Amino acid sequence: MRYLTAGESHGPQLTTIIEGLPAGMSIIADDINKELARRQKGYGRGRRMQIEKDKVHITSGVRHGYTLGSPVALTVKNNDWKRWTDIMGQEPLSADEEGEVRRQVTRPRPGHADLNGALKYGHRDMRNVLERSSARETTVRVAAGAVAKKLLSLLDIEIACHVVEIGGIQAGPANYESITQLQEITEASSVRVFDRSVEKEMEQCIDKAKEEGDSIGGIVEVIVEGVPAGVGSYVHYDRKLDAKLASAIVSINAFKGAEIGIGFEAAKKPGSAVHDEITWTKEKGYFRKTNRLGGFEGGMTTGMPIIVRGVMKPIPTLYKPLQSVDIDTKEPFKASVERSDSCAVPAASVVAEHVVAWEVAKAIVEQFPSDRFDTLKKAIDEYRQSAKEF
Amino acid sequence: MRYLTAGESHGPQLTTIIEGLPAGMSIIADDINKELARRQKGYGRGRRMQIEKDKVHITSGVRHGYTLGSPVALTVKNNDWKRWTDIMGQEPLSADEEGEVRRQVTRPRPGHADLNGALKYGHRDMRNVLERSSARETTVRVAAGAVAKKLLSLLDIEIACHVVEIGGIQAGPANYESITQLQEITEASSVRVFDRSVEKEMEQCIDKAKEEGDSIGGIVEVIVEGVPAGVGSYVHYDRKLDAKLASAIVSINAFKGAEIGIGFEAAKKPGSAVHDEITWTKEKGYFRKTNRLGGFEGGMTTGMPIIVRGVMKPIPTLYKPLQSVDIDTKEPFKASVERSDSCAVPAASVVAEHVVAWEVAKAIVEQFPSDRFDTLKKAIDEYRQSAKEF
Amino acid sequence: MRYLTAGESHGPQLTTIIEGLPAGMSIIADDINKELARRQKGYGRGRRMQIEKDKVHITSGVRHGYTLGSPVALTVKNNDWKRWTDIMGQEPLSADEEGEVRRQVTRPRPGHADLNGALKYGHRDMRNVLERSSARETTVRVAAGAVAKKLLSLLDIEIACHVVEIGGIQAGPANYESITQLQEITEASSVRVFDRSVEKEMEQCIDKAKEEGDSIGGIVEVIVEGVPAGVGSYVHYDRKLDAKLASAIVSINAFKGAEIGIGFEAAKKPGSAVHDEITWTKEKGYFRKTNRLGGFEGGMTTGMPIIVRGVMKPIPTLYKPLQSVDIDTKEPFKASVERSDSCAVPAASVVAEHVVAWEVAKAIVEQFPSDRFDTLKKAIDEYRQSAKEF
Amino acid sequence: MRYLTAGESHGPQLTTIIEGLPAGMSIIADDINKELARRQKGYGRGRRMQIEKDKVHITSGVRHGYTLGSPVALTVKNNDWKRWTDIMGQEPLSADEEGEVRRQVTRPRPGHADLNGALKYGHRDMRNVLERSSARETTVRVAAGAVAKKLLSLLDIEIACHVVEIGGIQAGPANYESITQLQEITEASSVRVFDRSVEKEMEQCIDKAKEEGDSIGGIVEVIVEGVPAGVGSYVHYDRKLDAKLASAIVSINAFKGAEIGIGFEAAKKPGSAVHDEITWTKEKGYFRKTNRLGGFEGGMTTGMPIIVRGVMKPIPTLYKPLQSVDIDTKEPFKASVERSDSCAVPAASVVAEHVVAWEVAKAIVEQFPSDRFDTLKKAIDEYRQSAKEF
Repeated sequence: MRYLTAGESHGPQLTTIIEGLPAGMSIIADDINKELARRQKGYGRGRRMQIEKDKVHITSGVRHGYTLGSPVALTVKNNDWKRWTDIMGQEPLSADEEGEVRRQVTRPRPGHADLNGALKYGHRDMRNVLERSSARETTVRVAAGAVAKKLLSLLDIEIACHVVEIGGIQAGPANYESITQLQEITEASSVRVFDRSVEKEMEQCIDKAKEEGDSIGGIVEVIVEGVPAGVGSYVHYDRKLDAKLASAIVSINAFKGAEIGIGFEAAKKPGSAVHDEITWTKEKGYFRKTNRLGGFEGGMTTGMPIIVRGVMKPIPTLYKPLQSVDIDTKEPFKASVERSDSCAVPAASVVAEHVVAWEVAKAIVEQFPSDRFDTLKKAIDEYRQSAKEF
Repeated sequence: MRYLTAGESHGPQLTTIIEGLPAGMSIIADDINKELARRQKGYGRGRRMQIEKDKVHITSGVRHGYTLGSPVALTVKNNDWKRWTDIMGQEPLSADEEGEVRRQVTRPRPGHADLNGALKYGHRDMRNVLERSSARETTVRVAAGAVAKKLLSLLDIEIACHVVEIGGIQAGPANYESITQLQEITEASSVRVFDRSVEKEMEQCIDKAKEEGDSIGGIVEVIVEGVPAGVGSYVHYDRKLDAKLASAIVSINAFKGAEIGIGFEAAKKPGSAVHDEITWTKEKGYFRKTNRLGGFEGGMTTGMPIIVRGVMKPIPTLYKPLQSVDIDTKEPFKASVERSDSCAVPAASVVAEHVVAWEVAKAIVEQFPSDRFDTLKKAIDEYRQSAKEF
Repeated sequence: MRYLTAGESHGPQLTTIIEGLPAGMSIIADDINKELARRQKGYGRGRRMQIEKDKVHITSGVRHGYTLGSPVALTVKNNDWKRWTDIMGQEPLSADEEGEVRRQVTRPRPGHADLNGALKYGHRDMRNVLERSSARETTVRVAAGAVAKKLLSLLDIEIACHVVEIGGIQAGPANYESITQLQEITEASSVRVFDRSVEKEMEQCIDKAKEEGDSIGGIVEVIVEGVPAGVGSYVHYDRKLDAKLASAIVSINAFKGAEIGIGFEAAKKPGSAVHDEITWTKEKGYFRKTNRLGGFEGGMTTGMPIIVRGVMKPIPTLYKPLQSVDIDTKEPFKASVERSDSCAVPAASVVAEHVVAWEVAKAIVEQFPSDRFDTLKKAIDEYRQSAKEF
Repeated sequence: MRYLTAGESHGPQLTTIIEGLPAGMSIIADDINKELARRQKGYGRGRRMQIEKDKVHITSGVRHGYTLGSPVALTVKNNDWKRWTDIMGQEPLSADEEGEVRRQVTRPRPGHADLNGALKYGHRDMRNVLERSSARETTVRVAAGAVAKKLLSLLDIEIACHVVEIGGIQAGPANYESITQLQEITEASSVRVFDRSVEKEMEQCIDKAKEEGDSIGGIVEVIVEGVPAGVGSYVHYDRKLDAKLASAIVSINAFKGAEIGIGFEAAKKPGSAVHDEITWTKEKGYFRKTNRLGGFEGGMTTGMPIIVRGVMKPIPTLYKPLQSVDIDTKEPFKASVERSDSCAVPAASVVAEHVVAWEVAKAIVEQFPSDRFDTLKKAIDEYRQSAKEF
């Protein structure tokens, strides 16, 4: 299972092609659209989120509500494209047009890909960088992840995300009774926290950052329940599923770290307080009473919930100016923006959920027979049973 | 550039094949052996480190001190193999032998791959799992990384590692004057800290864990200097170099998280205190006065030092017993061991250094022309110059 | 450089995403459209070729006539889609619709993917197979190849194809004076032969097959000039460029074989009449006076023209019925069709040209620095010079 | 499933690492050694085949006769290594040694990788090329293939090869009664032909070439029986198994073409005489009475025997001199050799068998669940049954 994405922030559309899905799996556009809507919500989003009412078009690989086994192509149109045809058009400009329409960008914003991308690809107009490096691309990563999430769901694997810290304000422990409860409560929260007692404080923190022309980051957590033990592998370093999850998280725009289970806390505790003891009952088979390792031992799942966290830095597009240098004049300038989100952490938690869904689904599709959805379902159910009886 | 590793902990040897190195690059066995020796040092290592005096054999791809461009195979013999030929032999056992020689393992250790690996691969004897999931394999990951590190060094890119926390004891900020100084001071330290003031305390913490039959983890940091801006790419999520580093770190045995630059601290600070302002001088070209983002923006290097940290959980092999279940009898038992390291963090920092070296070298080899070392060197020097003049 | 394609024959559109192109390379839609038009020409094509006037839309990765370095997405709309929305719609059918609109296919056609695809993916309606296995997909393979071909052309590498055999009628040796002449003459030919003396005979052969309700295949040849020596590699079996070309050719629908240079003739000749002697002059550097090996030694280019041929079987969709079995009733039936091409060899030669262009461009982009087009061009020119002076 | 190989022709050893094999599969060194011996036989081999009595050492991934699921490393020692330690040593030479021991090669042999490899990798001593480009490497490709072949055999899939043409002498049609008979008869033949009536003539042809200082090539055929329908896929061009087989064949040293089923003959016949009609009986399920398409439709297996052929050019190392140019002096010279095989076609057929075995096994391991051999076996048996009942 693999996917490619394409599309610039102000281009005509975003596209993704997903190759390697099982045939005969139920999927409709609304399975994806509801996730795109979740990505667009969240306290602290700027104006652009209103312009975009992202809707997906399935243009191949699905027929009458079921996957065909052939590649699935998804597109999300840019509703604002009409206003950008000159600036972002594909065809060459005439000499006349050239002067008028370009909004050439020669001022790299600190914290963005602008300068490094310009150096790498030789772009004197950094619009050529920022249009692609924009987090707008995560729209189709969510779309691809939504397909993966649907597949997981049909295999009785559920996934949820929640925000655990924003701007230094930490939510209390999320003692949810079920993943459904976690999903419902965070869905109702403006900042996607389970611990609603900190919601107001987080909102205020976001408001304050906005007022000051600043931005704030945070920490998000993704939970996956229902994955059987033994997904991923220890036999080769590049087959460890926890490592793939870490990579997926850090590959999200503005993410600077990832951890599994208690993560960095493991540096402070003795081994006897870190490892999860193994228990067995006839009814449940093997299980652990604790889950400090976040569902992973030896790069493989343990059958316990997968718990992965990621840290998002504050959005680098600030009203409050940062020092930078114009690449043409070499003059210093103060980089600031007209409009921006001051906090994208709640939305980013939805992105994190979907990139994790993709990696878990991919690992399952590679490990089990996956040409047909029904065969895949049966194989996983049999494997679950055999693990219980092992 | 790619590599595979093979080998069980008590098998005859470890092997790695590295494919895709430039031709004409200087390399000798001692370039690798000195790194293998660094991996074997460190306060708190158990007896096995004494048995193993790891030496590499180069069995292909190198002639008279230079790479040929063809795959490089490296082997590290197991000096203890004689004692294990029965237990780990490749050929089938006779009926007689079967009863005698096997040291069948039916008791999974919490925190290890044992149980999940057994469920996945159908092994009733978990020796079949633990022999491969052992951190012994990191020997050849270091060997492969040592070749990468040599390549980087010849391209004027230097790499170092140091320990920043052990068992909750944090080293002070590492205000080194140069990466050479950092290398020298940590090399002289029993626990690979730059802040020698905490060395004694860390040793005592390790001793205490040992006495109590417990183990402790820690945090390591890897620094890479000299990588030009623009290595990696924002254009597709799976080409972001910081994400690959996170994956490499978490793929090391017992690592549970990774972060870039200030990492998880970014959740607590406003954007104006996170992003690094951009400066330019004619002599140096573009640079930053701070490096909170650890050398990465948009999945690409910024030209500032790469800073990546990883957290290692305490070694799960404890004298202090943890509850587990025998997979044959289903009886609970107390998992404990005869001998073990109580802290492997200093050694793990060396592993981290080498897996990072590999990923950085791989990214460079993919981005620049790399059939010949001399052409590669020239291309990087020209790119550095063009970045300065951009 | 990699690409994925998506799209069913009667779905709304075909899509491809190309990742890894250099930035700053000139490309416009017409560069691609002219190749799509070439694919649609050719004596013996059926009615469908008239319906389709394939036009590409570039939806990302290109701005004002130049590549950005980000993924390029291309779409080709199905002009006939309106008529197929019921049969091929993405959303589930209502109970009412289900009976009416489906054109369920339960009769597998010999020589097509129908039956094997149904067995593999569990499709009882083989439309779910044939919509994707259709050669319609080669439209976007040509589109992706057209981008590759443009890249090659900008690097002074030219590519051409011609038909060398149709239905047993062989063209004489193609003693063209230049690749431009070869392109022009074959472009003017109804069956894409250079030896126009056999054109009429080939047309008659196609007509005769059509009258008899039969179909015919043929052999096509692709020539690439201007590739420097040493592209591809002998160091690992999966890096041999000639092997990749063979794979690309056989991956075209209905192709059953591929050969390089004199190919299968090499079984009949002594080594002294097969190998190409090596010559050197100060002006030209190393070259060969003959080119029996088709531009390859040791999996690498020799600097001589690449010559690769492929054989296409007759189209399996025949008016003349072939015996098959209905998968629902298990009754035998005679498989025949209402309309079809009787010979697609001329069109297939264009497809072959483009899949070869892709592989050659990919090999070059991997071997030389390819973030920026200008750097790539300079590196190849320098390499050509160094090869001459070696 | 993937593998890397390493090793130079006169280096200390050849190595391969195979990653991704199922656990619990029976394998012993002799399964591999018997195939290595088959590769070393064949009328017309030169002296070197006598020196080498290739024996494999399994150094990891196998315990007591069964795979562990971890990477399998195989090595084949060079028995002649003692004589080559100076010329091919890994460590740098002293100034004294440098003059003495090198057997520097400055004279590229036509038809070999020598010159192109030198240009590519910048080697002035072409020994640095020829040591790796040598067909000696196929030893470990056979070793890896032998493991794949064993896996296939345990899944009731049998593979055989035979020579169908040598130096223009064609064997008659191979009307074998069973693949076992084919294996036995060709194994007993000095030139691996099934049609023993041409054996003598082929031997004479080889002798004649030898006398004349020339060499001859030929055509080999590989047959695989027992692969169920639907292995490989039409859904994406790079998943077509026939294309992978073509690539595998052409990647063998000196191979210049590959064809499936009737291959290039398909250019001469009408569609009605090329496609295989589909039949069904309750006992056998779907099958074809003919197999002109060589077991492939739409890039997938049909359930009929896989038939793939490859053409090997005459060995380019001739006693009869070919014109070439010394790269140092630029003087022309006559390239000739002291000793060589005059025909390697019988041995090459064994190599072809093994590279095909690898690709088929890889496709099966990817399509079916393959962590455990027993699960894989059961899944394939169930799939075979479901295909019969479809």
